[in-house]
Amino acid sequence: MIRLFVGDDLKAGGQVVPSPEQAHYLIHVMRLSVGAELLLFNGRHGEWSAKVVSIGKGRCDLGVEAPVRAQSGGPDVDLIVAMVKRARLEVIVEKAAELGARRVRLVITQRANAGHANLARLNAIAIEAAEQTGRLDVPEICAAQKLDRVLAEWDAGRRLMFCDEAGDAPPALAALTAPAAPALGWAILIGPEGGFSPAERARCRAVAGAVPVSLGPRILRADTAAIAAMSVWQSALGDWRGT
Amino acid sequence: MIRLFVGDDLKAGGQVVPSPEQAHYLIHVMRLSVGAELLLFNGRHGEWSAKVVSIGKGRCDLGVEAPVRAQSGGPDVDLIVAMVKRARLEVIVEKAAELGARRVRLVITQRANAGHANLARLNAIAIEAAEQTGRLDVPEICAAQKLDRVLAEWDAGRRLMFCDEAGDAPPALAALTAPAAPALGWAILIGPEGGFSPAERARCRAVAGAVPVSLGPRILRADTAAIAAMSVWQSALGDWRGT
Repeated sequence: MIRLFVGDDLKAGGQVVPSPEQAHYLIHVMRLSVGAELLLFNGRHGEWSAKVVSIGKGRCDLGVEAPVRAQSGGPDVDLIVAMVKRARLEVIVEKAAELGARRVRLVITQRANAGHANLARLNAIAIEAAEQTGRLDVPEICAAQKLDRVLAEWDAGRRLMFCDEAGDAPPALAALTAPAAPALGWAILIGPEGGFSPAERARCRAVAGAVPVSLGPRILRADTAAIAAMSVWQSALGDWRGT
Repeated sequence: MIRLFVGDDLKAGGQVVPSPEQAHYLIHVMRLSVGAELLLFNGRHGEWSAKVVSIGKGRCDLGVEAPVRAQSGGPDVDLIVAMVKRARLEVIVEKAAELGARRVRLVITQRANAGHANLARLNAIAIEAAEQTGRLDVPEICAAQKLDRVLAEWDAGRRLMFCDEAGDAPPALAALTAPAAPALGWAILIGPEGGFSPAERARCRAVAGAVPVSLGPRILRADTAAIAAMSVWQSALGDWRGT
């Protein structure tokens, strides 16, 4: 069943006009006809069944029918990633959406591999992945900030899973499951391909709530590390623990 | 430091002649000169320091110098993946090498997405990833077999982490860490994008040593599921637990 993320409010009897790109996808790629069923979500009103009610030149109209799932969010976990090359950054955003990150925050580090990110494109990737993975929200993609500023303004209630390649951090699972006061939320920090500088490592470890972790004895690419860290976090503390 | 996987035996004073592709990489891509240092491994004799001793037309000679690390293998874990589209299969092989799988076994399932795999290319990807990730062996890529045959010939001493999207399996971490007799080894089974058929699911669950697991409430692409499952397994039972 096709799932479409839309900006409009969703309520029974409502009408939704998809964007031209979405209309093209529905009519020409998926070849839907009038009467075809699909699912809509907007990140606010849950998931709704809908039908194609009319098809025009380069556009279509959707009629909202009935609620399917009530709105719910995943756990409060941000993925903070250093600017890496475009292809790997796009993989990271796709996988963050699949793995349930609430936000993806880009940070500029001393050994950053890339200076610019196309936020519109990353947002489109996040939407498409959210549509396919079945979640009811789309992770927010936050414009790049300097790592130093992010750390200086750190919210003391949010814990930081600091993926520290440089050596002596404890194993991720043990560190995450060690008893600690409940956190208001979490963030997972992944460095650039060249790693964090020694000064950056020290500042990350000094953050209130920092949990330095190791992801094993092998060197991981940034995208692998991001997926691995999200998976271990979701298993230990997130919504992969079951109900 | 450049790491190169070679077929030759490695011993102090030995000579190694890289393949033409490797020579091209060393001389023209990395622009090594005579006297430049690199690391060699062959999956049998550990890791050795070496130097470029001569450069000819489209070839070079390497002199093996001293042992750096003794041979060691990662944990005995196979990644068994259904045939999926080429691009995703290549990602899976790259990540399996980074994440420490000992073997990658391809299986043909009822809802397979692709009929043919280029084993030479997958092997080259595995070698390059092994070189970059720092491991001392290269995961073996095993030609596709029918899933039914793999299950029928299952080694009763090997446990099977069966990543079961279809619903009622327990959370992965809880299932992996539930007390059980020690296993001789493990395998992780990832299905095709269309999922396993009901008959396949039943057969997977009936295997001696099968551990059905859930990877959370969202639908994961095959490559995401493979990386996630490897990461959770390594954290719970593999060499990410630390020493």
